[in-house]
Amino acid sequence: MRERKWEHVLACIWEDVESEESPLFDCVKIVHRALPELDFDDVDMEIELFGKRLSFPLIIAGMTGGHPKTGEINRKLARVARELEIGIGVGSQRAGVKDPEVRWTFEVVREEYPDGLVLANIGLPQLRENGPDLALEVVDMVDADALAVHVNVLQEAVQLEGEADAAGFVDVLAEVCETVDVPVVLKETGAGVSAEDAKLVRDIVDGIDVGGAGGTNWAVVEAVRSKAHGEIPLGYAFSDWGVPTAASILEVRSVVGNDLAIIGTGGVRTGMDVAKVLALGADCAGMALPVLRKVLAEGVRGCVRFLKSIAREVKIAMLMAGCSSVEEMSSVPIVV
Amino acid sequence: MRERKWEHVLACIWEDVESEESPLFDCVKIVHRALPELDFDDVDMEIELFGKRLSFPLIIAGMTGGHPKTGEINRKLARVARELEIGIGVGSQRAGVKDPEVRWTFEVVREEYPDGLVLANIGLPQLRENGPDLALEVVDMVDADALAVHVNVLQEAVQLEGEADAAGFVDVLAEVCETVDVPVVLKETGAGVSAEDAKLVRDIVDGIDVGGAGGTNWAVVEAVRSKAHGEIPLGYAFSDWGVPTAASILEVRSVVGNDLAIIGTGGVRTGMDVAKVLALGADCAGMALPVLRKVLAEGVRGCVRFLKSIAREVKIAMLMAGCSSVEEMSSVPIVV
Amino acid sequence: MRERKWEHVLACIWEDVESEESPLFDCVKIVHRALPELDFDDVDMEIELFGKRLSFPLIIAGMTGGHPKTGEINRKLARVARELEIGIGVGSQRAGVKDPEVRWTFEVVREEYPDGLVLANIGLPQLRENGPDLALEVVDMVDADALAVHVNVLQEAVQLEGEADAAGFVDVLAEVCETVDVPVVLKETGAGVSAEDAKLVRDIVDGIDVGGAGGTNWAVVEAVRSKAHGEIPLGYAFSDWGVPTAASILEVRSVVGNDLAIIGTGGVRTGMDVAKVLALGADCAGMALPVLRKVLAEGVRGCVRFLKSIAREVKIAMLMAGCSSVEEMSSVPIVV
Amino acid sequence: MRERKWEHVLACIWEDVESEESPLFDCVKIVHRALPELDFDDVDMEIELFGKRLSFPLIIAGMTGGHPKTGEINRKLARVARELEIGIGVGSQRAGVKDPEVRWTFEVVREEYPDGLVLANIGLPQLRENGPDLALEVVDMVDADALAVHVNVLQEAVQLEGEADAAGFVDVLAEVCETVDVPVVLKETGAGVSAEDAKLVRDIVDGIDVGGAGGTNWAVVEAVRSKAHGEIPLGYAFSDWGVPTAASILEVRSVVGNDLAIIGTGGVRTGMDVAKVLALGADCAGMALPVLRKVLAEGVRGCVRFLKSIAREVKIAMLMAGCSSVEEMSSVPIVV
Ligand SMILES: Cc1cc2nc3c(=O)[nH]c(=O)nc-3n(C[C@H](O)[C@H](O)[C@H](O)COP(=O)(O)O)c2cc1C
Ligand SMILES: Cc1cc2nc3c(=O)[nH]c(=O)nc-3n(C[C@H](O)[C@H](O)[C@H](O)COP(=O)(O)O)c2cc1C
Ligand SMILES: Cc1cc2nc3c(=O)[nH]c(=O)nc-3n(C[C@H](O)[C@H](O)[C@H](O)COP(=O)(O)O)c2cc1C
Ligand SMILES: Cc1cc2nc3c(=O)[nH]c(=O)nc-3n(C[C@H](O)[C@H](O)[C@H](O)COP(=O)(O)O)c2cc1C
Repeated sequence: MRERKWEHVLACIWEDVESEESPLFDCVKIVHRALPELDFDDVDMEIELFGKRLSFPLIIAGMTGGHPKTGEINRKLARVARELEIGIGVGSQRAGVKDPEVRWTFEVVREEYPDGLVLANIGLPQLRENGPDLALEVVDMVDADALAVHVNVLQEAVQLEGEADAAGFVDVLAEVCETVDVPVVLKETGAGVSAEDAKLVRDIVDGIDVGGAGGTNWAVVEAVRSKAHGEIPLGYAFSDWGVPTAASILEVRSVVGNDLAIIGTGGVRTGMDVAKVLALGADCAGMALPVLRKVLAEGVRGCVRFLKSIAREVKIAMLMAGCSSVEEMSSVPIVV
Repeated sequence: MRERKWEHVLACIWEDVESEESPLFDCVKIVHRALPELDFDDVDMEIELFGKRLSFPLIIAGMTGGHPKTGEINRKLARVARELEIGIGVGSQRAGVKDPEVRWTFEVVREEYPDGLVLANIGLPQLRENGPDLALEVVDMVDADALAVHVNVLQEAVQLEGEADAAGFVDVLAEVCETVDVPVVLKETGAGVSAEDAKLVRDIVDGIDVGGAGGTNWAVVEAVRSKAHGEIPLGYAFSDWGVPTAASILEVRSVVGNDLAIIGTGGVRTGMDVAKVLALGADCAGMALPVLRKVLAEGVRGCVRFLKSIAREVKIAMLMAGCSSVEEMSSVPIVV
Repeated sequence: MRERKWEHVLACIWEDVESEESPLFDCVKIVHRALPELDFDDVDMEIELFGKRLSFPLIIAGMTGGHPKTGEINRKLARVARELEIGIGVGSQRAGVKDPEVRWTFEVVREEYPDGLVLANIGLPQLRENGPDLALEVVDMVDADALAVHVNVLQEAVQLEGEADAAGFVDVLAEVCETVDVPVVLKETGAGVSAEDAKLVRDIVDGIDVGGAGGTNWAVVEAVRSKAHGEIPLGYAFSDWGVPTAASILEVRSVVGNDLAIIGTGGVRTGMDVAKVLALGADCAGMALPVLRKVLAEGVRGCVRFLKSIAREVKIAMLMAGCSSVEEMSSVPIVV
Repeated sequence: MRERKWEHVLACIWEDVESEESPLFDCVKIVHRALPELDFDDVDMEIELFGKRLSFPLIIAGMTGGHPKTGEINRKLARVARELEIGIGVGSQRAGVKDPEVRWTFEVVREEYPDGLVLANIGLPQLRENGPDLALEVVDMVDADALAVHVNVLQEAVQLEGEADAAGFVDVLAEVCETVDVPVVLKETGAGVSAEDAKLVRDIVDGIDVGGAGGTNWAVVEAVRSKAHGEIPLGYAFSDWGVPTAASILEVRSVVGNDLAIIGTGGVRTGMDVAKVLALGADCAGMALPVLRKVLAEGVRGCVRFLKSIAREVKIAMLMAGCSSVEEMSSVPIVV
């Protein structure tokens, strides 16, 4: 399993693993204000999420851990998050539970970022298999502020060896929510959450990370791996599957109202995308692949520089939209 | 005539004979479910059609017979169908009736697949010419479970020597339905069935194979042959003619309700297309050209492998759509 | 002036003089009938127009005359028309009136086609200048069955030396209609007739040739000439100006009901285009540029062959649409 | 500051500084009239604006001044304007106020064009900083017929050293309007004015220059400069930001009715664009970049020739639309 984790990272860095379908941010335009009646310095990007303050509304979405090399990556990502005062998630902690030797590859995130927003991460299949106490364990491992419970049925289904048993997930989720003390986020990983899904969980969870289509696509990641192993790359057939991120945010918000936190992840690539995610109704954006690539190519400093320019882009877009707070962004006029 | 049949097969294998118009499957999206609440192993693709059980909802659409070489093709196709437990049709049996020497090229299908769903095939012009007893004869020839009565007015019209007399077809169809014991399917062959057509026959036939535009286009096939014979390839003018398969399924279903079986053929090329055909309201998909090409290029084993990966794609799509049965697929939310 | 006429012909033959805008026929689809309940041999393409019978609904739109070489072209076009029993128009007869030496270049059309539908042609500016008796003269010159009165304000406006005085045209038209005995057709020449225009003349004229945008564009023709003469090619700015033919037919038909004959000219290039022109509500199609190019490149025989294959295309489309007469074509279901 | 002004001019001349987004003129079509019932010579393009007569509805939008070389450019532009009897604006006069040595670079415009429509120009940040008397000073400097008060928040925000304080602008604008005697125009500079903005100022100003997106884009201009200086070219992220000119004119007109003058600037490149600007509801068009490039490349004579052919295009379009006056253009039927 360690190796598979590392293979995933390698595939994501070297291959084209993104959706054929766009996240549909290009269909959204924020209306320009010639007279925003606002000072750039008064634009406040801070938000509070799961009890922690973020200097701007971004989470480095959970990606890795479980292999020594990924421990070093997590360390770097945590330093980036700390320097920018943004949120960070770890990858699935299944390996950290099963294999004490790699536990540190997750713990390192909290060590590096003692006061920050850190999200634990575990999959619904593991929780069903091991019972809700596993949730307590992973939260504990990183002293998490919140727990991201991920689903990734598509990835499992396109793997020939995959399980792909998605039965009973809603009940498992309910049990987990009763068990842990921290807020729980249902997290898709690249195929999006539809309105129907949101209805099933709106009374159970505290937040939804839409993980929409248009960015990293796990069907494609598995296809790349299958090809490398000489197997039929079935996943390509699903390279355009899923609810695009922009559509998913709209669908989920329409179902959950303001009761739940929405994190808009999936194909977020620029500051303008972050601004659109907010304008569509998310509370915070999430970004995975570009952050991983940047930190590996240019280190902590390069990655910080990259995310700072993204932050500035968001701030400019907020100014030009006439919004002094992230909250106001959700009611900005947009053209779809 | 034997030669013409073989020419058709050759043209379809070697030339680009598909419609310039898409079947419009790309305009249809099945909505992803992050929480399908379903186990992959519980997804049941079985259907019953015309009294026979299919392991997944696909028919190898009727293509050939009448020339010794096509007899061997039919043998192989029947083995593919048997191995996968899917349906199979034969090509027009006109030759088999007129010329006892090639009768075996059709009979071979039933020999190879004794328990399977086999559809007999004959054209409306032949039935009008020879009377409804011809229908009994062709059904008998392959001990058919159902009879596909095809129309192909476009093909006949674009041939310079063609007859293209389409008068009185509805009455002929009615007579045939009264004569034979097995269910009768009206079968278009690549130009689609419109709502108007469906209204004419809904009280007469037991099923409609829409044979929509977007796949093999007979106007183009004839144009290819005309060119080879040094004649004006008139058919190209109709290379985008017809009701696209996706539209045709919607039109026909809206007219016939749930009283008739709908087979969605025409441009079905992937498992995702099969899934969309079901989501649009067909009971079963049909595929002709790609199966022919595969069985000739890679034999029975290659063709079985190909269709198995298609079946797996369909099953994954059903899982991701949250459907445990083919029937449920018809009420899945789609985005057009 | 003789030379200018010849320059126009040369420009039209050698240069790209067609609109950047499509006639929008590609936005129209005739619905296929799987069961047209009709024999190909019973499809009747004959129409009666302005007292003459046409074997299929096409007019060779008025183009030329006035230069000896164009006399020979007109002779050939008339032979084509006679052989196919379709309509034919001559080009503007202004030259034939002013210059008796070239009168024969128009008269030749009637000589070659004694019983056929021949349309005289003259421009509104000339009629305003010379009074309505000019109309009598041009009708008389070719013993015309109808008179096409053309407008071409765009062409005149983009010429630096052009007059472009379009004032009082409606009154002139009314006078002309009172003066001549034959039916009068208002004829645009490539920029289309809008609903507003149709309203102005519906109680005056007997027919409208929409001459819509999407085919030969006179602004471009003049631009080509300007460039050749070393002048600023102003016309290119208007290369996409005008009401596309498909839209123009719909607009005009909606205003004039069934009281007037509509001729659909402008960018008609295939039999399918002719069929669509009829389905949109025109009584007859018109074609200019392709006929000219064909007759010059391949002579009378080549041109006849070309138009025969177009006629066959129309007939096939009528069969597939389930129409046994041209009249029925106007109520065929279309998808826009 | 002198140097920055010159850098801007250089960037605009040599680099691609236009928006990635179109001004959307291509989405607008003016309906052709086959029978405009109008003489070309009777088409009157004259308008009156801010008390001055223009021979056709165009203003050379304010661009430059403040650097000796730009003084020569302004001299040439003024000569062009005088020869054509159109309006002209100067660039921001901030430099002219601060630095008496370059005052002449603005004054030259009025010297060259004593009777013409000249617009003064100053930014809202400068007015807020220096108080409304600055407005009197700049109006006085060019003996202006009107004062254009520009906003350019986007440009300021994408500059790392930029201020980008847009607070209190509406109040400043109100004060300025009470202070100066001449009409005041709120002038965007390439990102457009939205309906919301128009509502804020409709009771304050006398006109709005929409300065819409689709032409010169200041975010891109700054990005080009940043790159040249080795800085991060943040502006590219906003290369498609803003309300396209066509949309902005419609939005503003719907809010201000006929009470205010609307100038349609931003991506106007042809006479057809000017005609569309009028048809969309603007009183006058504005053009910046192409005029600058032309006058520098081909001098006063070349620029006059260029604008004359544009004027002729406008006049032809007016004729073909059946409009004898600019006012009528605003109620011409358009297809969006
Ligand atoms: C290398 C890599 C590993 C990932 N591993 C996990 C994981 O273990 N758990 C999880 O919930 N999501 C995981 N994801 C999904 C991301 O959190 C995110 O939802 C997805 O990549 C879409 O965002 P993007 O388009 O910005 O990459 C991973 C993504 C990448 C690129
Ligand atoms: C080589 C070939 C021969 C065919 N012959 C027949 C036939 O005899 N009878 C018939 O009903 N359809 C015939 N068809 C039509 C197919 O059944 C099917 O309707 C059509 O090819 C569209 O499906 P496709 O796009 O998957 O090829 C033939 C198709 C092919 C490719
Ligand atoms: C060479 C040439 C000359 C033409 N001369 C005339 C003319 O004299 N009078 C007239 O009414 N239309 C004239 N037309 C216009 C045609 O009748 C027709 O309206 C126009 O070309 C659009 O049809 P098309 O796209 O099939 O060419 C001419 C067209 C061409 C190509
Ligand atoms: C070189 C240059 C300098 C400009 N300087 C000013 C200025 O000082 N003040 C102002 O209001 N607008 C200025 N503008 C903006 C123009 O007035 C105009 O709004 C904008 O360029 C869009 O028009 P265009 O697409 O035709 O260039 C400038 C434009 C250019 C190209």
